Amino acid sequence: MNADELVYLSRDPLNAETPLERQIGVITPASRHYVRDHFAIPAAPERLAIEGAVRTPLQLDLDDVRSLPRRSLIVTLECAGNGRAFLDPPAAGEQWRTGAVGTAEWTGASLRTVLEMAGPLANAVELVCVGADAGPSADAKARIAYERSLPLADAMRDDVLLAYAMNGVDLPREHGAPLRLLVPGWYGMASVKWLARLRLAERRFEGFFQARRYVVGDRPLREIAPRALIAWPRDGERLPARPFVARGYAWSGRGDLARVAVSADGGRSWRDATLDDALSRYAWRQWHAAVAPSASGDLVLMARAATTDGAQEPLEEVRNDLGYANNAVRPVRIEIA
Amino acid sequence: MNADELVYLSRDPLNAETPLERQIGVITPASRHYVRDHFAIPAAPERLAIEGAVRTPLQLDLDDVRSLPRRSLIVTLECAGNGRAFLDPPAAGEQWRTGAVGTAEWTGASLRTVLEMAGPLANAVELVCVGADAGPSADAKARIAYERSLPLADAMRDDVLLAYAMNGVDLPREHGAPLRLLVPGWYGMASVKWLARLRLAERRFEGFFQARRYVVGDRPLREIAPRALIAWPRDGERLPARPFVARGYAWSGRGDLARVAVSADGGRSWRDATLDDALSRYAWRQWHAAVAPSASGDLVLMARAATTDGAQEPLEEVRNDLGYANNAVRPVRIEIA
Repeated sequence: MNADELVYLSRDPLNAETPLERQIGVITPASRHYVRDHFAIPAAPERLAIEGAVRTPLQLDLDDVRSLPRRSLIVTLECAGNGRAFLDPPAAGEQWRTGAVGTAEWTGASLRTVLEMAGPLANAVELVCVGADAGPSADAKARIAYERSLPLADAMRDDVLLAYAMNGVDLPREHGAPLRLLVPGWYGMASVKWLARLRLAERRFEGFFQARRYVVGDRPLREIAPRALIAWPRDGERLPARPFVARGYAWSGRGDLARVAVSADGGRSWRDATLDDALSRYAWRQWHAAVAPSASGDLVLMARAATTDGAQEPLEEVRNDLGYANNAVRPVRIEIA
Repeated sequence: MNADELVYLSRDPLNAETPLERQIGVITPASRHYVRDHFAIPAAPERLAIEGAVRTPLQLDLDDVRSLPRRSLIVTLECAGNGRAFLDPPAAGEQWRTGAVGTAEWTGASLRTVLEMAGPLANAVELVCVGADAGPSADAKARIAYERSLPLADAMRDDVLLAYAMNGVDLPREHGAPLRLLVPGWYGMASVKWLARLRLAERRFEGFFQARRYVVGDRPLREIAPRALIAWPRDGERLPARPFVARGYAWSGRGDLARVAVSADGGRSWRDATLDDALSRYAWRQWHAAVAPSASGDLVLMARAATTDGAQEPLEEVRNDLGYANNAVRPVRIEIA
């Protein structure tokens, strides 16, 4: 990892984001892809166990998984806490600004292939995904692993990967080597890193990271909410009084992004930005919009995503106890000289 | 550059390829992307001149180009000499095997934007693209630059880029920093690196690399011919007598790839491989096919691309004076133990 590329929130556990203006194109290099860890990076598991309510428990090593048909997908991952830093009053938790999001090509086997090899029993309802990373619980009385479950129907989607490569190279250590789960379209908490065990469970999983974190009310987080962000100009930038091209990224984990509207007058008037084609239904899209400042002074830029069902990104901050999924429009104030 | 990832044909000029089995997914990291240079890597040009038959000659620096609307495309580049090593008898030139091909996300401004800023005059017919790299001519009597032209109609296609980034980072030096041309769909010779000058010309350009190299007969090479290659198993590999999944890549610079057929009996019988979706019309696609060896002994695998017009990749080698565009089916012999 290159310290110049990421802004660190903490070193241990490792939490780091990338200011959006550093992104170029759709693909985020690993050196600029946000990292969100809950515990120290663990030793790499040698095998992945598939166990619980299955016909044939399995132990697979990396070569076993590599020998299965490959699947590659371009996927935007976003931390559920991205944007928490802008909540007022603040919410507890990592104070992510807008850089806990990135897009990479992930390659692996389809999780479904492996689950079918093990043969889930008829009474299996959830898949509990266990990382090798572990540490003290919140009350420090126990040691807990990072564990998160998926309803079995979601786990069986072809696009859910056991990923071993990112952008054409073996997974970097901080991104979950040797194997991580990759759940396209969902907030990053579902894409368990350093995957050690997959346990087919007969009842709803109630682990800490399933029932006490990454929930809104009593509902575990799932798909990434629609969002458009401005990558350039940056907040506080001073620009000459001539036309410029604002640019940014927009995405929705549901694959239903329809358009991006841009305002250069603090939200009084809006017009559509030009939106690039999607590389996949899970990948963010670049947008750009020409802006012609009418006078010197301050100018407030805003970008706002709309989905195919006509819904728009909220203008007001999104509040819940733990500060998740705050996809509110994020204004950028610039000064026209 | 990482010496472990590439196989060097020469160090000065730098010529290196990547055995196809090292590729994972669609995106080729820069460390594994083939490099084909004609001269030593030059000092980075400070400005790009747009000159000749234009209304307004321009001098642009990198920041000027970066301020224009961005365009990102996933593009497979292939050297026109890829596959030359298999010609029998051999043809003169770099002896590329099958690794002088790779796929990256390239980001830049549309060349058209810059040409329109300069305003081509009505009598302009070609765009001569001049790299900063230069060296002795074939007879050593003069010093020549790497120069290649595009018909103006081709240069004005929106997808032709003045690229400054590859896979989300600034162009690496060996890939043409600070600015290179990127002509999607065409053999790599058109994507001039270390771009120093763009000259609008009133007549057909007859420079060395336009009229004496990268030609078949008297026709300059253009679009990449359709091709499917096997990435795994490797030629000479020994495998146990059980079913396996062969995999590889297929592409066509004309964007008309329709299917890949695979034979496991040296070409007597063929069936269709599973072909992944295309990330762009210019990007190679992964394919895979299950193979069930019927007996021990040698087995000859072949993969063959077919295009939407029904044409198939040739089974016999493609010969021309300089050994270009040899897209013949490349068999892989494996031993079943």
